[in-house]
Amino acid sequence: MAELASLLAGIVGAAHVLTGDQVPAEYSHDEALGVDARMPGCVVMPASTGEVAGIVKVAAAHGAPVTARGGGTGMSGGAIPAQGGIVMSFERMDAIVDIDTVNHVAVVQPGVTLARLDVATAEAGLVYPVFPGENSACLGGNVATNAGGMRAVKYGVTRHQVLGIEAVLASGEVIRTGGRFVKESTGYDLTQLIVGSEGTLALVTEATLRLYPRPELQATLLAPFGTLEQVTRAIPEIVASGAEPLVLEYIDMLSMAAITAQADIGLGISDQIRATAQAYLVLMLEGYQPGRLETDTEVVGELLAGLGALDVYVLPPHSARQLLEAREKAFWVAKAAGADDIVDIVVPRSALPRFFARVAQISQEIGPSLVAGCGHAGDGNVHLAVFQPDPALRSHLLRELFTAGLSLGGTISGEHGVGIAKQRYFLEFTDPVKIGLMRRVKQAFDPQGILNPGVLLDRLGSSDG
Amino acid sequence: MAELASLLAGIVGAAHVLTGDQVPAEYSHDEALGVDARMPGCVVMPASTGEVAGIVKVAAAHGAPVTARGGGTGMSGGAIPAQGGIVMSFERMDAIVDIDTVNHVAVVQPGVTLARLDVATAEAGLVYPVFPGENSACLGGNVATNAGGMRAVKYGVTRHQVLGIEAVLASGEVIRTGGRFVKESTGYDLTQLIVGSEGTLALVTEATLRLYPRPELQATLLAPFGTLEQVTRAIPEIVASGAEPLVLEYIDMLSMAAITAQADIGLGISDQIRATAQAYLVLMLEGYQPGRLETDTEVVGELLAGLGALDVYVLPPHSARQLLEAREKAFWVAKAAGADDIVDIVVPRSALPRFFARVAQISQEIGPSLVAGCGHAGDGNVHLAVFQPDPALRSHLLRELFTAGLSLGGTISGEHGVGIAKQRYFLEFTDPVKIGLMRRVKQAFDPQGILNPGVLLDRLGSSDG
Repeated sequence: MAELASLLAGIVGAAHVLTGDQVPAEYSHDEALGVDARMPGCVVMPASTGEVAGIVKVAAAHGAPVTARGGGTGMSGGAIPAQGGIVMSFERMDAIVDIDTVNHVAVVQPGVTLARLDVATAEAGLVYPVFPGENSACLGGNVATNAGGMRAVKYGVTRHQVLGIEAVLASGEVIRTGGRFVKESTGYDLTQLIVGSEGTLALVTEATLRLYPRPELQATLLAPFGTLEQVTRAIPEIVASGAEPLVLEYIDMLSMAAITAQADIGLGISDQIRATAQAYLVLMLEGYQPGRLETDTEVVGELLAGLGALDVYVLPPHSARQLLEAREKAFWVAKAAGADDIVDIVVPRSALPRFFARVAQISQEIGPSLVAGCGHAGDGNVHLAVFQPDPALRSHLLRELFTAGLSLGGTISGEHGVGIAKQRYFLEFTDPVKIGLMRRVKQAFDPQGILNPGVLLDRLGSSDG
Repeated sequence: MAELASLLAGIVGAAHVLTGDQVPAEYSHDEALGVDARMPGCVVMPASTGEVAGIVKVAAAHGAPVTARGGGTGMSGGAIPAQGGIVMSFERMDAIVDIDTVNHVAVVQPGVTLARLDVATAEAGLVYPVFPGENSACLGGNVATNAGGMRAVKYGVTRHQVLGIEAVLASGEVIRTGGRFVKESTGYDLTQLIVGSEGTLALVTEATLRLYPRPELQATLLAPFGTLEQVTRAIPEIVASGAEPLVLEYIDMLSMAAITAQADIGLGISDQIRATAQAYLVLMLEGYQPGRLETDTEVVGELLAGLGALDVYVLPPHSARQLLEAREKAFWVAKAAGADDIVDIVVPRSALPRFFARVAQISQEIGPSLVAGCGHAGDGNVHLAVFQPDPALRSHLLRELFTAGLSLGGTISGEHGVGIAKQRYFLEFTDPVKIGLMRRVKQAFDPQGILNPGVLLDRLGSSDG
């Protein structure tokens, strides 16, 4: 490692390589639950694509594993390095290269945070519409995990916004794909293959992202319902209405109590309704014209009432912002409450009622365990906080939850990714023919296996295994 | 071939295998210009995924090339078989498996035409938003080329609608990807890798497609401009206005004269304006509420006038439909007029004025040649009909046009694909590192090279070479 570190220092300067005891513990983990941290042998902080390429060439020559790291906010362990390997931290590559107001694109380096991009795009009257909930997350990680979030129901996920990338391959070669346009039909879509590949195919050093005109007006509706089933049955009706909600979230009773208590939000809900409501729907509309937004809000409010809402609250802007921010922090609340794992299952919208019925059964049968949730109901993407301290029971519970989601035509992860945390389930539940194809694709990109080994397809003996 | 045909007849029945003189000439070509037809050794027409898998296994055992064929409407020669190879025609696999009104998806077999899907979705109040212009095209081919069309400016291209597929691999194994949901982060996106791969990675036997609520109201505006440059400068302003046009097309003077003469459309344009206008913008808005659509139409009309339109016509529905249909047939008009090639270049919207200036120069310098055009200006996607009968001059001209597009940050094809027709340019202009990656991906999927050899990456000595 000493020789390797010295070669890396030759590329980025000694001040930008940390080894041994100099490496802060934060580089050994991300925010995934149930996964052990692993200390890297060194952390290297490049300042340019050329430096990234140089580092990868050195790593390739030494057969040393390289794990990319942005904000470290990932939920699947995708930024956990191989023990003793290299962490490539993009904290110095944090330039917003361009906000292009004519083509409506942003060009960013991987270390740019969502928070900074949001400020920069707002100044131009534009918006990057992916809000996965943690604004200290970096774009590099968002691209690597195909991050989603609340607004995907209207704008789609990260994949739909990435128009092109610059990436360093495992050979140290640099490629550029796509550009400041939406359409292309010239061979295999390398952009889309690298998006969501969790750092195992290439290191993204720049991304060209789609922006949209930023509607200035928003309205937030909160609707308590007597049952979770009513909420889930309301979802397809709202989508079918053509209302195009920006946000369409469900929050179950437990989660609502936890996140509002934590954030001390007064939503004006009467005690009687609070006592009756088993679940809530949060719906946000946006627009350019006050009159239209007002009408839309009324129409959707009536729709919600017709679908069985106990009441419909149009939240004042301050409360709305508080509630949405609190909802985005639901993971932290769950973590603080001692949640043992978080799952991120997707099912077709139509299957949500059956899925939740099955979740209730499973959590009774196994343990019993406590399973509370909220999520992107408009997309059928459910985040469940699982409270079950016994590892064997918890693993059984998770397996049953995944089986329930998959048997309803769903998938194991909507936006958190597989990483290390969900790897055993991914490998267990995915058709071996597809795993074989993915392994051959990995081989095509990274024959030595130096990019993020242990994540996604590989097993490196994680403690979860 | 006799032995092979007999094995194939054993799978699909003798009535569904054509060999030798039985093979109609139409199976030897698609609609690409400047590419030689090649007669297949046989045409086989499977009725099920199981039969497709059986056919591929037989082909693999014999090392026989397999070319998928849908409607035969492709523009790049992607459905032209290897001489003496197998054409897999999906004409019998034309079932609309499901129109799911809750999850808003259609599940279709590859032989379903866009025309039939549009009727079926309309009955459900939904729409599949990709209208590439030729409604006899099949969904299989649309998926293979990542088809685009006029409405991509609002809804995106085929890639954005394909939520999952069933596909037969070169080994004869069958995989299923994705599902009736929009979000997924579970490994490499095999769906997006196969979309746009022009039949070279796998044979798609079923696609799950995203549908949208179908707005019932549309308004079409036609705006003549004094110069093409004014049209191209207007484009970004319209996109930035938040008007969200469904269609945003430009038509140059020559193309407008040709397509309206062909279709005998009266648009109510005065002779004086017709004599002055160098280019036209066609803009379509859609909505659910008559009052809003009326207001939007007025706002956009004023915007167009402010951007220098000579006049703004709100077309009556009948004329609007005629004009749009005629525009969609522009390729046929160009072909009938003797066009020698069609190009499908994309540039960033902001680069359209510079691109057209360069096109004018190039067409004067080389020949001179006649280059007329229309296209999806909102996406920066330009279709140019090239009239230059001399092959060497034409090839020089095309190379210069591609160079111009690429140097402005564009790409060679937005929606027609590479196929055989644009292969030499694709291989010449694409970074060899990316070509190498794509070849390794091809190898990972199809190590024997039996799926559509000669298309995209391979050269089989096409006459265009």
